[in-house]
Amino acid sequence: MAKSAVQQGRLSKKQYEAQLPGLREQLIQLQVQLKESRFKVVLIVAGVAGAGRGDVLNALGEWLDPRGVETFSFHTPTDEERDRPLMWRYWRSLPASGRIGIFAGSWYTETLREESLNKKELAQLNHELRRIRHFEKLLADNGTLIIKIWLHLSKDNQRERLRALEADPDKAWRVTDDDWEAHRKYDEVGETARKIVRETDRPEAPWTVIDSTDERARNLVIGDLLVRRFRSHIKRSGRRSLKPIEPPRRPRSLAPSGLRRLHATPLDQKLSETDYEEKREKWLGRLHRCIRNAQAARRSVVFVFEGWDAAGKGGAIRRLTSAVDVRFYRVVPIAKPTDEEKAHHYLWRFWRHIPRDGYVTIFDRSWYGRVLVERLEGFARPDEWRRAYDEINDFEEQQTEHGTIVIKFWMHVSKEEQLHRFRARAGTAYKTHKINQEDWRNRRKWQGYEVAVGDMLALTSTSFAPWHVIPSNNKRFARLQMLKTSCRAIEQALDK
Amino acid sequence: MAKSAVQQGRLSKKQYEAQLPGLREQLIQLQVQLKESRFKVVLIVAGVAGAGRGDVLNALGEWLDPRGVETFSFHTPTDEERDRPLMWRYWRSLPASGRIGIFAGSWYTETLREESLNKKELAQLNHELRRIRHFEKLLADNGTLIIKIWLHLSKDNQRERLRALEADPDKAWRVTDDDWEAHRKYDEVGETARKIVRETDRPEAPWTVIDSTDERARNLVIGDLLVRRFRSHIKRSGRRSLKPIEPPRRPRSLAPSGLRRLHATPLDQKLSETDYEEKREKWLGRLHRCIRNAQAARRSVVFVFEGWDAAGKGGAIRRLTSAVDVRFYRVVPIAKPTDEEKAHHYLWRFWRHIPRDGYVTIFDRSWYGRVLVERLEGFARPDEWRRAYDEINDFEEQQTEHGTIVIKFWMHVSKEEQLHRFRARAGTAYKTHKINQEDWRNRRKWQGYEVAVGDMLALTSTSFAPWHVIPSNNKRFARLQMLKTSCRAIEQALDK
Repeated sequence: MAKSAVQQGRLSKKQYEAQLPGLREQLIQLQVQLKESRFKVVLIVAGVAGAGRGDVLNALGEWLDPRGVETFSFHTPTDEERDRPLMWRYWRSLPASGRIGIFAGSWYTETLREESLNKKELAQLNHELRRIRHFEKLLADNGTLIIKIWLHLSKDNQRERLRALEADPDKAWRVTDDDWEAHRKYDEVGETARKIVRETDRPEAPWTVIDSTDERARNLVIGDLLVRRFRSHIKRSGRRSLKPIEPPRRPRSLAPSGLRRLHATPLDQKLSETDYEEKREKWLGRLHRCIRNAQAARRSVVFVFEGWDAAGKGGAIRRLTSAVDVRFYRVVPIAKPTDEEKAHHYLWRFWRHIPRDGYVTIFDRSWYGRVLVERLEGFARPDEWRRAYDEINDFEEQQTEHGTIVIKFWMHVSKEEQLHRFRARAGTAYKTHKINQEDWRNRRKWQGYEVAVGDMLALTSTSFAPWHVIPSNNKRFARLQMLKTSCRAIEQALDK
Repeated sequence: MAKSAVQQGRLSKKQYEAQLPGLREQLIQLQVQLKESRFKVVLIVAGVAGAGRGDVLNALGEWLDPRGVETFSFHTPTDEERDRPLMWRYWRSLPASGRIGIFAGSWYTETLREESLNKKELAQLNHELRRIRHFEKLLADNGTLIIKIWLHLSKDNQRERLRALEADPDKAWRVTDDDWEAHRKYDEVGETARKIVRETDRPEAPWTVIDSTDERARNLVIGDLLVRRFRSHIKRSGRRSLKPIEPPRRPRSLAPSGLRRLHATPLDQKLSETDYEEKREKWLGRLHRCIRNAQAARRSVVFVFEGWDAAGKGGAIRRLTSAVDVRFYRVVPIAKPTDEEKAHHYLWRFWRHIPRDGYVTIFDRSWYGRVLVERLEGFARPDEWRRAYDEINDFEEQQTEHGTIVIKFWMHVSKEEQLHRFRARAGTAYKTHKINQEDWRNRRKWQGYEVAVGDMLALTSTSFAPWHVIPSNNKRFARLQMLKTSCRAIEQALDK
């Protein structure tokens, strides 16, 4: 079925039991090593009906230390899941670093099921497979060991297995109507499965097809595979240095057009207080209607606020929220990750917070920290932050494809205006908490940040989620601009 | 309306702005102190329509450092929420230690709404209010500062406010049909609200009624209240030592009947291998049918496995899961809490994992750690673990009232049998990971643990979630007993 198919014969109980202790010892050692290392293992167990997914899970459950293992399976999506992009339910089920996640159901299950029912257009299937490849690549790039097992059983063996179970009155309950249905559709399901396996058999996430005719041999092969893949993964990741590299003092721009855009932004706009107050109420009203219309259309809205320190993100967010019913929005300020968040891919903590259909989430700083502070401070290695542009675009594309309206603001102030505001903050008792040594340190790296911001604008301004640069030297002008831009973005998205 | 009503007059803009800086400084200091301390703040903002909940949130949002604040509100429950006990959605929204959670909607919202619609029987309302009191007491006992604000507005003022907004074309959008509906029902809603406020106005979670006629005065009073309540909370919790007390060598039993039950359990049962295998398949089949019937009835099942080290919890769980379709169960092994979990009430991590209707969750160790290892090792103070019996009973009652079938096993072995198994483990290469210094240490405290287990059996064996003591010196006997007990418990629950 696939090039990586594993051959095995039949095993007697005696042979099986002779080999077990050695295998179990290796698996336990593997878990000890895994706990110390910083990666995770994702093991997908898929295959034809009757091939014994449940038995494999039980064998692994017996061999492995359960405290380091989580088992996941997926049934009909809940409404919380349907109300978000397809991959949300899988993101929220990923194991943490040092742990093994065994997926009895997975991102393949739905695709396979629906496809076998002939419900999908080819284009749609190909699109889903592309998503899956991207998802697995992202996990693998992050150091995750991905092992995908396809349990195979010939049509004759499948029938034989089901009949044997049915013949024993105490075991007949194990055979369901679904199993026989799968047997009748053996050939169609097989063809779909072959396509899916072929299209998702990648170096970073290869499939291994395992013959399930002999249950003991199957179990041993799976245990062995786990040990072998783990060892070669350890060896390979050992070669790659995990230490962050000292970032260069003057980062080189990847895409200078972004920096030019930033520099070309005029910052000297003015707006009088009366003018502002009058227009503000008008635009707040319009924004309020926009968001209600989005809700009526079951569309969610994600706002991303990025900008220089003291550029006025907080104030802008408060103007924005005053137009939204408190029951429907949530502000998510992004500070240091918790250790649970650190034990996951950097996008995991943001997937956690994306809104349900009809709701609004406002990110006060966001996933762009990966290509800004983490790039500048060396918290991410160059290969990590360089890859992030693509990962982020995909993340936002998944949201917009689902129907979410993604609106991103870069609040831009001049270096002089920032200095002015820092000093004002330092001089106001209830604002001193807003300014600390880190802000001054960041300010000294202004030039480097400019390069990073420019690259971000150039590389993540997509048709589905463009960046809006908001001139923010004048706070009133900035807030009004933000309101107008938000309205237009939502109206445009709803018009389509 | 309530004894704690706060009086205030009108404030000019000038007076307001003169007082603001001092207040904001205090609030920021409060947040710094809060971050260092280990408690959390829950602030509930409720009240009549038009009293300005949104404005209050925005004012607090401006004054507080947003990185330490989360705002929650609740709309129609999702199916994931409806599929679990009422309080699940609130548990999953609690702030972590050192943070402020502002609840624009809360556990009062639904109760108030439904009650005003006259949908509830008095008994049902009283039951819900009891739940709320229990929940708030549990939070307060755990050190949470609970501040509950009821924003009041007279019927005339409400009408005036709504009309004034409507008269301004730019602000008219702020008034909804719901607001006018609430105005028409002013008296009924008021009566219900008075009852709810009266019944839930407790020393650990008092209500403060705040007049909303003057918006500026209202905002200042709320800010002041936050500061005052915070200070007195700090003073009070400072008096109470937070250091765990060295546990006594020989714990005294609270309820000796449990220890007697444990000692009276016969442990010398035998079961031959053939006998076991034959009966096992029969009972697995029956259990399989039971769980399918539970699913058909949209009932979830929670299994709790507790027992002596090496009593055979893991093996028993694997027998159990072999009867359940992999898509429907989840095994949750309980080890050390993550730091995210540690920043919450000890029950939070278990609320996280309770199953949806129709699903099965198996806890390999559980919330009973609070009254076992935490009691014995001094990880919990005596007042904490003593209180836990009641908190746990309530937790399980909420589950069973919702329809969950809770089945609890204590797997009991003799001290001799444990020694025998420890030695066998130490002598088998792939089992040595199952035995460590801690196990030997726990074993030396056998007598103390016996007392704790006895108290647990006596104090948490309720009609809705009784303990089943499984004699486990003979593994086969224990597994079969566990299967039989599970079947009967599910059948009995479905019969009702």
